[in-house]
This record gives sequence, structure tokens and C-alpha cells, in this order.
Amino acid sequence: MNSSTHGNTQIVLKRHPEGAVSPDDFELVATGMPEIADGQVLIRNLYLSMDAGFRHWMTEGAGDNYLPGMQLGDPVQSMVLGQVVKSRHSDYVEGAYLSARCAWECFSVLDGSDLAAVIEPEPGVPLHEYMSLLGPTGMTAYFGLMQLGRPAAQETLLVSAAGGAVGTAVGQLGKIHGCRTVGLTGTEAKAEWLRQEVGYDVAISREADPDLAAALSRDVPDGIDVFFDNVGGATLDTALGQLSERARIVLCGAMSQYEQERPEPVFNTWELITKRARMEGFMFSDYADQFGAAAATLAGYYRSGALVSFNQVYAGIESAPQAFCDMMHGASRGKCLVDLSEA
Amino acid sequence: MNSSTHGNTQIVLKRHPEGAVSPDDFELVATGMPEIADGQVLIRNLYLSMDAGFRHWMTEGAGDNYLPGMQLGDPVQSMVLGQVVKSRHSDYVEGAYLSARCAWECFSVLDGSDLAAVIEPEPGVPLHEYMSLLGPTGMTAYFGLMQLGRPAAQETLLVSAAGGAVGTAVGQLGKIHGCRTVGLTGTEAKAEWLRQEVGYDVAISREADPDLAAALSRDVPDGIDVFFDNVGGATLDTALGQLSERARIVLCGAMSQYEQERPEPVFNTWELITKRARMEGFMFSDYADQFGAAAATLAGYYRSGALVSFNQVYAGIESAPQAFCDMMHGASRGKCLVDLSEA
Repeated sequence: MNSSTHGNTQIVLKRHPEGAVSPDDFELVATGMPEIADGQVLIRNLYLSMDAGFRHWMTEGAGDNYLPGMQLGDPVQSMVLGQVVKSRHSDYVEGAYLSARCAWECFSVLDGSDLAAVIEPEPGVPLHEYMSLLGPTGMTAYFGLMQLGRPAAQETLLVSAAGGAVGTAVGQLGKIHGCRTVGLTGTEAKAEWLRQEVGYDVAISREADPDLAAALSRDVPDGIDVFFDNVGGATLDTALGQLSERARIVLCGAMSQYEQERPEPVFNTWELITKRARMEGFMFSDYADQFGAAAATLAGYYRSGALVSFNQVYAGIESAPQAFCDMMHGASRGKCLVDLSEA
Repeated sequence: MNSSTHGNTQIVLKRHPEGAVSPDDFELVATGMPEIADGQVLIRNLYLSMDAGFRHWMTEGAGDNYLPGMQLGDPVQSMVLGQVVKSRHSDYVEGAYLSARCAWECFSVLDGSDLAAVIEPEPGVPLHEYMSLLGPTGMTAYFGLMQLGRPAAQETLLVSAAGGAVGTAVGQLGKIHGCRTVGLTGTEAKAEWLRQEVGYDVAISREADPDLAAALSRDVPDGIDVFFDNVGGATLDTALGQLSERARIVLCGAMSQYEQERPEPVFNTWELITKRARMEGFMFSDYADQFGAAAATLAGYYRSGALVSFNQVYAGIESAPQAFCDMMHGASRGKCLVDLSEA
């Protein structure tokens, strides 16, 4: 790998994935070191965030109002944390840490758009946490749960993809707010980890309980008060069938759908009427003006040990394709990061 | 018909409708005048409200957390407006007007439950309006639009079943609040009536525009800000595909679904995430503590002529089955009522 200051290394999209994404859909390429113009800044990337949501925009023709679809030959988009190497932008000084929506590459040029934000690491908090619990992942968990889910003590909080980056944080935040937490995951080994390490009160795996409706009837007999959904499709549909009155469904992601040609059907929207329930989508970036306060709250939980950050770290930019595929297919636990800081 | 004080007349459920409801699913029966016990009140029913929502509970085994399913031989449930004939309940004096969830019958016994509420008719407002614009229908339109839809001036408000009881009221309330209003209906004749009489800015009929997605692209090019949905199913799914950012979808009813064996699928829930949109169900009865203020507001609009009440009135209890079927199948306009006051 060449990530010296003499050149750049990128992972580009070689072909649009069809169905399950594979490492072969990506290609590592060496390119020249980018130049910056006035109003731009060059960052050296230290951590790449592996985010399921970006899978959607890898599909051919998947552009929407939020982001355009990724083009073949372009570096793959991702949230990244980097350090300013050169700056011709008055907001960003050399040496500063930045997070932004950027790409799988060793060096990037930013102009202050793409959610760019200066990171000021607090003592006692490792830098990579700003791409995890104190970064987009933690913000997603925090604002989704607190602003949309609005959990009350004693309520039952259901979380899908509970062993993922957002799911591990949401489950713990639910416990902090006095909820009974129920996590959904793929394997029984991961369910056991959710119970023992992450602290879910109940964990349901597809492996042990292929019939989710039956498992929910057993484990959530009084109905779901808050459903934090990262999965969509049939999981969402089944949960809609078991809501309590005035339930809140937080639509965070739809992992089960990104690799499908056509979305799975949802039949149970009528339940939203009889249960007077609310279903709402969001993006963490909607709350940018409150990031500081949220980060301070989460850092407090983190330092006290009430909130543990679970990270699975892959080393080197060449590992990004495998890291992304592992994350998409349930083979990783917690937040999946690629560490470029040792390169 | 025998609706004298010597006996009662009821319309009972003769068979559970399968698919499209038919007058043959009902039967008129003569029964004895009911007796009241302590804590009960006998009312003579003056107006029966034909409400699509009750179709759901006519289907065999359709009970849910909101209401049990209707049983064969039982009088058909409905909202009614009646006058107290005899009272052994301290809250209700003889001569008082009451609205309640009750049944298609000339006389009913109430105990104060089932949404029973005393009506105090205001001068200049016909009594039947308390079963229409100033009753459950108006409350449904008002609270759904104002509490969940939260329309702002210049926003585009889409209404399905726009020519129905709730739809005619919602469209006019939207205009009062400065919205551009777009109504969906079945026939071009009804669409013309929506434009000319009800005051919708745009009306789209299935007859003239079988492709709703194309019609919305043409007539709502900037996206739907508020969707007040009375129809559900494919109509809801299509509208979800054309939301603007932070759209609000008010789930009021699902008329297209009540006569289907299995609900139609909805594929576009992902749109709620990328558009950060909210979809929420409600029942007018959730806002009982605010009925007085809402009725005063609506009565003010009504007296000023800003809000017109559209009623289609059938005479005599024997007309209730046909009235209900007409309302369900789009053959009536505005609020469908059965008038028992002349019996």
C-alpha cells in the first residue's frame, strides 16, 4: 500500500453490486496526491466508518434526493475521520481532526460541505470513538432514540440489528433510560453476546427463533412501545403486528432491503391506526446543531462505564472491502472501522 | 317500520360480508323496547352515521384491541345521535341530546361508556351537523389535520377519498390554512364536484388518471407535504413514493383495505427515511378533552361560510344497509347519514 505523501490510495467501485455485496465489487487503485485550491483542505484519513446505509447508493441507478448513486471508478463513499495536512480553508487549521462524508482513500480533499465537522478530542476518549460512539454512529443512536423514540422507564424497547454499531449503543441507552430492552440478531452466538456483554435484557436470534412473530409473542407479550429499526422489510412488518398503543417506530435503516432488487412488502400499516402509533424516519445529520451537547452526554456515559463502545477494527485500507462485506452480512460485532492510522 | 315506543327496530348483521359489502348482509328485525337499569339511559336515535371504519369489524374474526368484531345477529355498530327518552343516569336528563358509538336501531340503551357525549346544539346549527361536521367526522378531520398533519401555508396537502365525509372537510380546512389542496377520488364527475363545490385546487380521479404515480408527478411536482390518507394500500404506497422532505402522513383510514381478504402491500417505507417523513395513526376519540374547543372553531367556520358541510341523507332505518354500501363504494358524496327523526 502506498499511503505516503507522494501518492494516494483509493478503493473504487469496480462494479455495482447485485444482491449480496462482495469484495470483488471493489478495486484498490493508486492515484496521485490530490491538490487543493482556495477554500479546500487536504486531510489524511485515519479511520473509515463502515456504514450499511451506503450500500443502498452502490446499487446501479440508486440515487435519490439524499445522495446521488455511486459511479463506477469513483472512490467508495463513507464517513471518515481524518487530520488536516494542508489547508486553504480558514475554518480548518493544519493538525485539526475532521469528520466528514468522504471516501475510502488515504487522502481526501474537503471544502467544508459533506457534513464536515471539526473534532476536538476530549481527554480519556480514544480518537477512533469520534468515528464510533461519539461520531455518526453514536449520534444516530442518540437522536433516533431520544428525539423519535422518546423512551420512558418501564417501556419495552425493541432493536433490530441489535449487535450492530447503532444497535449496541441503542440497547445500552435504552437501559440507561429504564427500558426493558429486546434485541434482534442473526445467530445464537451473537444473541448470547448481546445478553452477556452488551446488556440486552432479552436477545432473539433468527437461528434459534426463525418465527419472529412467535418469539415476540413470547418475549414481548404486552407489545412493543418503541421499535428502533435498522432492518426494514419483513422484520418491520412483523413488529408492526405487535405494537402497544401509541408505539413509536424509529426508522433508522433497512439493512435487509439494501441487497434486494425490490423492497419487501409491508402489510401491517393498518396497525398504526388502531394502535395510534407513529413511524418516522431520520438522519443523524438533521441534528447537527445539537451534536456538541449529545457528544458531551455520550462522553459522560462512556467515561462512567454506563455506555461501552464495541468496535471491530480492521487494519489498512486494503481491508475495507472485506470489512464492509462482513458488516453487511452480520459477521462483525458492534462498530466496524478500518484503521489507517498506522499506515 | 315500528319505531313507536311500543317496540324497537334494529338492523342486525345477517352474515359476515366477504369482499364488497352488500345490503343482503344485513337484516331488519323488530324487537321489544329495551328496559333500563340504574346507571343507564334510553335514547331514541335521530341520526345514524355511516362510517367506513366499521366495515373492518364486520369481517369474520376481525376483532382487535380497539373493538371486538361484530357478531351475527347483533345490531350493526355505528356512531349515532339520539335524544334521551328515559334516564336512570345522573349525567343525562330526559330531552338531552347524546352522541355515542351505538348501533343501527331506533332505540338504544347507554351507560355513559362507548364515547357517549352530551350535545348542546348551538343556535344556527342544524342538529344533524353534530353527527357530521361538528361530530365525529369533523373531529376526525380537524384533529387529524391539525395535530398530526400540521399544515403550513403554501404547503401541498393531498387527501384520499377526498369526496367522502372526512375528505370534504379536510380539503376545506386545508384551504383555510393556506394549503394548496389536491384531492383523490373515483370518478371524473366527483372530481369535477370536488373542484367546483368543495373547493379543491386540484382533483384527480381514478377514471381519468388510472396511473396515480404519473398524475402525482404532473400535479404535485414538488412533492407531498401532508398526506391525509383515508384509503391505504396501493394509494398510500404510491403517495409514499412522492413525498417532500419532512412530510407528514396522517393515517385516518384504509377504505381500500376493509373489503380485502389480506391487506395490500406497501413497498415504499424506505422513503420515510430518506425524506425524514412521519406516518402516524389516530382516532378522533383520542382528543375527547379538546372536543369543545374544536367544535367551537368548526362552528365558527361553518357559520361564516368558510366551511361547508356536505351531507347525503337517507330516510328511515330500513335505508341504512343501502346507505352504508353506497358510502363504502363511492356512490355517496360527503357525509352519509340516515335520518330517523321523522319516523
